[in-house]
Amino acid sequence: MTDSRVPFRHRRRILWGENDPAGMVFTPRFLDFCFEAMQFFWSDVLGINWHEMIFEQQIGAPMVHIDIDFLGPLRTGDPLEIEVRVHKLGRSTIHYGFTGFGASGEEKFRATIVSSMVDNVAVKSVPIPDTTRERLEAYMGACDAA
Amino acid sequence: MTDSRVPFRHRRRILWGENDPAGMVFTPRFLDFCFEAMQFFWSDVLGINWHEMIFEQQIGAPMVHIDIDFLGPLRTGDPLEIEVRVHKLGRSTIHYGFTGFGASGEEKFRATIVSSMVDNVAVKSVPIPDTTRERLEAYMGACDAA
Amino acid sequence: MTDSRVPFRHRRRILWGENDPAGMVFTPRFLDFCFEAMQFFWSDVLGINWHEMIFEQQIGAPMVHIDIDFLGPLRTGDPLEIEVRVHKLGRSTIHYGFTGFGASGEEKFRATIVSSMVDNVAVKSVPIPDTTRERLEAYMGACDAA
Amino acid sequence: MTDSRVPFRHRRRILWGENDPAGMVFTPRFLDFCFEAMQFFWSDVLGINWHEMIFEQQIGAPMVHIDIDFLGPLRTGDPLEIEVRVHKLGRSTIHYGFTGFGASGEEKFRATIVSSMVDNVAVKSVPIPDTTRERLEAYMGACDAA
Repeated sequence: MTDSRVPFRHRRRILWGENDPAGMVFTPRFLDFCFEAMQFFWSDVLGINWHEMIFEQQIGAPMVHIDIDFLGPLRTGDPLEIEVRVHKLGRSTIHYGFTGFGASGEEKFRATIVSSMVDNVAVKSVPIPDTTRERLEAYMGACDAA
Repeated sequence: MTDSRVPFRHRRRILWGENDPAGMVFTPRFLDFCFEAMQFFWSDVLGINWHEMIFEQQIGAPMVHIDIDFLGPLRTGDPLEIEVRVHKLGRSTIHYGFTGFGASGEEKFRATIVSSMVDNVAVKSVPIPDTTRERLEAYMGACDAA
Repeated sequence: MTDSRVPFRHRRRILWGENDPAGMVFTPRFLDFCFEAMQFFWSDVLGINWHEMIFEQQIGAPMVHIDIDFLGPLRTGDPLEIEVRVHKLGRSTIHYGFTGFGASGEEKFRATIVSSMVDNVAVKSVPIPDTTRERLEAYMGACDAA
Repeated sequence: MTDSRVPFRHRRRILWGENDPAGMVFTPRFLDFCFEAMQFFWSDVLGINWHEMIFEQQIGAPMVHIDIDFLGPLRTGDPLEIEVRVHKLGRSTIHYGFTGFGASGEEKFRATIVSSMVDNVAVKSVPIPDTTRERLEAYMGACDAA
């Protein structure tokens, strides 16, 4: 894990179809952006294949809570960098923090998302798998040290 | 199958977030509308549970071809009625026709979608299941008679 | 405003394409559902044309805060009723409450969304327009009395 | 215009939320992918700001026809490269060709999209603006020579 990835930032641009008739990003799309960043964080930083976890280990990670504060508008073509942090690990829960940055580094939104590990067969919460917890803790440590 | 349902029309309104900054429906959403209509056609007209077909019988129905002609714009709040027809049945293929009608009955778009039945385990095309074919043929006959 | 509309409930079904490979509603779609309900609440309950407000009066209503708690999964075909309440009115802000109910009346999610009225030309917050405030207060009163 | 961009390929990965419960890309998303590629083609290859064209010059480019053939499934995490070509220019119309390539270079879909330039004020078709036509022709020439 190199410094350049800590904290991890997912980079993208705002697309035409993600905006509403007022010309600004349609609010629910912000949540799509966070999940996009979360997916790249898992595959590119944690190195864990979400699909495999869900379908081979039968462990799901449904969301239990989300909150978002909107700090500035975004429009077609605007660059957006989403920083992904992990604030806290419970027995089953992961508390993510997402911050969206605009072209000049100004904050566009701040979001907290909490997911909970679930055994898909028994339909009950389970501890975060060991490898996942280790990698998440390593990432949290690297962010603290950055 | 009563006359009032033949041909079947799915009714909805255009939502704010489905439009682009030019104030018109973002083009890919027209395809979402057709699939929405297709889903209601299967559950409410054919009386077949898509989920059950796919997960219990392991039969999928991926799309093989789509074409759409756009005939007029749609905007937030506009009513839209999508007529669903079945033009042709092959051994494995279903040829659907979708026509979108605006507030005054004017045509907004015309689409053809072709899907093909596939055995998800063997990963090869299979004949349309008998019950499905019977119901599709009954619907085609009812549309002809309407 | 009749009792049957108070509190207002937007009814819909979960569509195939709104679910992820785990077979459950993809989390960002819950926010789409809330905005769908909000749009029908404005047009069908308040009787206010959002488009007109934004483009003729040049008043926008961007979101400033959202939080959601997820209480149970939803899958393709599941019915969903979203109750819309207005919890509080500030000078410029509207605090909405959304509750999603499943087939047996069980709660599926609870969301709070706060929007703020903005003058699109001057780009500064403005008071909620009088007519809008009156109708929102009438709705709040009717909900309290229901 | 360097060889490395001719023909232009937009690269992305399939995201979790773009797939349906059968685990494959939900069909309407293919059209979203094509429009994403079209947007990057305009900004990064043609160097034309779509927004500016639409809002300053009051020229829109609504779609008049789309057809797609699906040649193979795509799943979460799969890489996708979309090649963008311009097949033909009419007085007002642009005929695009899109081909989606998978990890091993195999074709996943082929699409044709036709758009038509429209004066948004007079609401009638207009010739493709000169600069746009020149750049499109230069791109077509470069693709032929590649």
